[in-house]
Amino acid sequence: MTKIRAAVVGYGNIGRFVLEALQEAPDFEIAGIVRRSVSEIPAELAPYQVTTDIHTLGKVDVAILCTPTREVEKHAAVLLAEGINTVDSYDIHTSIADLRSNLDKIAKANGTVAIISAGWDPGSDSVVRTLLQAAAPKGITYTNFGPGMSMGHTVCVKSKPGVKNALSMTIPLGTGIHRRMVYVELEDGASLQEVTRAVKEDPYFASDETHVMQVASVDEVKDMGHGVNMVRKGVSGKTQNQRFEFNMSINNPALTAQILVGVARASMIQKPGAYTMIEIPVIDLLPGDREELIRHLV
Amino acid sequence: MTKIRAAVVGYGNIGRFVLEALQEAPDFEIAGIVRRSVSEIPAELAPYQVTTDIHTLGKVDVAILCTPTREVEKHAAVLLAEGINTVDSYDIHTSIADLRSNLDKIAKANGTVAIISAGWDPGSDSVVRTLLQAAAPKGITYTNFGPGMSMGHTVCVKSKPGVKNALSMTIPLGTGIHRRMVYVELEDGASLQEVTRAVKEDPYFASDETHVMQVASVDEVKDMGHGVNMVRKGVSGKTQNQRFEFNMSINNPALTAQILVGVARASMIQKPGAYTMIEIPVIDLLPGDREELIRHLV
Repeated sequence: MTKIRAAVVGYGNIGRFVLEALQEAPDFEIAGIVRRSVSEIPAELAPYQVTTDIHTLGKVDVAILCTPTREVEKHAAVLLAEGINTVDSYDIHTSIADLRSNLDKIAKANGTVAIISAGWDPGSDSVVRTLLQAAAPKGITYTNFGPGMSMGHTVCVKSKPGVKNALSMTIPLGTGIHRRMVYVELEDGASLQEVTRAVKEDPYFASDETHVMQVASVDEVKDMGHGVNMVRKGVSGKTQNQRFEFNMSINNPALTAQILVGVARASMIQKPGAYTMIEIPVIDLLPGDREELIRHLV
Repeated sequence: MTKIRAAVVGYGNIGRFVLEALQEAPDFEIAGIVRRSVSEIPAELAPYQVTTDIHTLGKVDVAILCTPTREVEKHAAVLLAEGINTVDSYDIHTSIADLRSNLDKIAKANGTVAIISAGWDPGSDSVVRTLLQAAAPKGITYTNFGPGMSMGHTVCVKSKPGVKNALSMTIPLGTGIHRRMVYVELEDGASLQEVTRAVKEDPYFASDETHVMQVASVDEVKDMGHGVNMVRKGVSGKTQNQRFEFNMSINNPALTAQILVGVARASMIQKPGAYTMIEIPVIDLLPGDREELIRHLV
């Protein structure tokens, strides 16, 4: 069997776990890791090519983008045009449709595939949400997150001037309402008031109750566990009170990474274009013989 | 917008609820109802064509098969060859892959689409099971059913000689182990011992702890509520103890019917062939503008 050659682009939280998920995947070969700088290479990367330029890695079938969310489009646009599939866990819900539409044109023009916003939310949760909507079309789905660290929100806070380190915790208040508890280590001379304003004005935080607090050490309060409680009460046909619930308690970057590897696999068998996870058959996420999977899973 | 013309084939428990789900669906038109006999037509069917012959209904895009499971293949084979898509909730897990393979040939040869085993289990549960397998590839998923009436098992018991009416209840014992509690009304002169033997030997019951009991009236103990508790603990990449849980408390035929209408819709945009639900993008189950669905659900 020819293995899928994947490059890991970006080696932060997600990138580390993507490497582990690729090492465990029977059908992948690690083409290499792409970083902004190769001056300090962690020990676990010793067996791999580490580069600042993906073109040095030979044939790459799919690039798994583990960069900050706001850099995803830039990287995907270039790689898709160069004949490399891309997958990402882009997580700004309000811009997903636009990202899909932009990348779709490039992917179709170049015979490549992008699968976007493929983590757990957006991502696997989106698949469950869509399925529940189909199961009981009238009704409301509440997605309650946490308590847990939001990586997207944390990266956003870290990008604000004056912030040395940060942690954004998501606290579920029920019916899809959340509080954001933001813990920041500030740079010398930075103003907590200004940082707080910058955070609260950001689209990531603007619609949630947000509290920004200064701490001496972010590392001492950090834990990567996370959770979801998704609830739908709805109507199937004319029958009321159909109830559904989905719960997870997970290591956040580990799950995101595993989903990214699944969609990287799925990208190999889609028609050119850009997709979200709800547009991909779930069986395509799995390795192995389809007939066998159907026998075991249906 | 041209509406999808659907025929309901079979008008028992599921058929009734399919009619209701079609009435609520914005994009469907009810071509008619196909029954074995048209001698007694229920009042709610007065507005519709009721026939023993689907060919009298004009153009039919998709036939929603609501017959007993064991009659699904026969009907699907004929209709697919005549240019009509079919969907069903065929529920004998061990034969699903074979049914798919048999119908796939006919569908491909005739430019039609079959979506099989599309209820809630097999069906929507299969989608969740597959997604959880992708989220944490190593581990075990336990699907616990009930307490609730199993329609497939009940129809099976009713088909045994000497049985006037029956109810098969599924009792979850945890870790995917179930007890079958079977309540039967017997015909005059029938032997409970012989009925019990026939039930226990059937593939539907052979691998479960099964108790058959005689009751005076099955109707008095019947309730169509059902439930599922699906649990997976597994490994994402190299990270252990990832936990997932999916729960439902639902009216059984109402949910099956709603899923059938969803896959009937999906059948209109698949390439010719036979599919299980895990091979269909979940977005295809929903009506409406895809861009809009992506904005709301991803």
